[in-house]
Amino acid sequence: MTKAVVLLSGGLDSATTLAIARSENYACHCLTVDYGQRHRAELAAAARVAQALGAAGHRVIALDLGAFGGSALTDPAIPVPEKSGAGIPVTYVPARNTILLVLALAWAEVLGAQHVFFGANAVDYSGYPDCRPEYMRAFEALANLATKAAVEGRSLQLHTPVIHLGKADIIRCGAALGVDYVLTVSCYQASPEGRACGRCESCRLRREGFASARLPDPTRYLDAGEGDSHTRH
Amino acid sequence: MTKAVVLLSGGLDSATTLAIARSENYACHCLTVDYGQRHRAELAAAARVAQALGAAGHRVIALDLGAFGGSALTDPAIPVPEKSGAGIPVTYVPARNTILLVLALAWAEVLGAQHVFFGANAVDYSGYPDCRPEYMRAFEALANLATKAAVEGRSLQLHTPVIHLGKADIIRCGAALGVDYVLTVSCYQASPEGRACGRCESCRLRREGFASARLPDPTRYLDAGEGDSHTRH
Repeated sequence: MTKAVVLLSGGLDSATTLAIARSENYACHCLTVDYGQRHRAELAAAARVAQALGAAGHRVIALDLGAFGGSALTDPAIPVPEKSGAGIPVTYVPARNTILLVLALAWAEVLGAQHVFFGANAVDYSGYPDCRPEYMRAFEALANLATKAAVEGRSLQLHTPVIHLGKADIIRCGAALGVDYVLTVSCYQASPEGRACGRCESCRLRREGFASARLPDPTRYLDAGEGDSHTRH
Repeated sequence: MTKAVVLLSGGLDSATTLAIARSENYACHCLTVDYGQRHRAELAAAARVAQALGAAGHRVIALDLGAFGGSALTDPAIPVPEKSGAGIPVTYVPARNTILLVLALAWAEVLGAQHVFFGANAVDYSGYPDCRPEYMRAFEALANLATKAAVEGRSLQLHTPVIHLGKADIIRCGAALGVDYVLTVSCYQASPEGRACGRCESCRLRREGFASARLPDPTRYLDAGEGDSHTRH
């Protein structure tokens, strides 16, 4: 089996991306970055998803981006907005996706893997600059100059299989591949147990995705009244 | 004053780079990454250098690349070689420079800085792929797609002022700008007090640099007999 590093946040997009990589028969080494995110419940979600989807391994690496701050996801003093405004929202974490990708690149080189899977999405993506296809191409170009592996002819391929899919299509695709979305956490301010606020941008995109896909929303909301009936267990 | 983030390892090249940035009147926010490097003495050296050269600030961020391993600098089981062989040496840390640069990019965005200084060197560089000018250009291209700042028109400029200089020229330049190289640590296996082995590739390049520059080598060696007379204090 061909090895791949799969960036796994514990959210819906990365769980689906892992399921796609598994369906393509990659041996998936999942990487989760504990960057000081407010929604730490996603770290436990990542471990559950990696196990449920048959990852070859799962590693969590710590990097405290709270030391820099500048985002509602890493600075507790900046509240998570509940309405989407114009422009790039305060949930944008400076250079975060580049940090995630380069850590995946580093681990891939150590493992001898030439494939990295990343669940970035350019449709329902909240306007983040580091979710765009041209950004992904620039990262791949950099990766293929940056490493000993590349210099020696083992180039890196970056796979972003959900980049052009809307949330509903991502959910349909993952459901067809057996992803159990109750294991995942998308909410930017999830409770320590992984219950979702139901009000932030990430919750809104996720809920609309299940509705458009005409699939029951298994999300466990803090206010059980906001979720689907079978969320109340 | 214009703000810049300066990557400061505590070694000779980055200390010189900081001195150059200071001489160009940048307000220098120095960033040191504690990545689990074997030569941890360079972290204390970085703090000394930042203070001596009038940095506007100095921050150390922790990221344990030992979790990935794959380098003599992060895996204690891989010895530091004392002779340079063919190809890229085992002191190469997978994707390390990209990791350093993207952390600098993240901090620059939070600070509102549009300049990053990096002391990479493509002459006496041990063959590392991520020290080449074409790599630096690819990083800058990526950075200018990756961030909210770039999307909003505040592009990032990467400065690598010593990239084309040989070690002797770097030393001459730094000495002229008042760098006190006794504060710096280059050795890959320096003692906790910062004394150099005098035998690794990094020590060899540094010693040859002082000799070629016809300047006294202030390095504090473990075996004092190997150093210059005034190193024995």
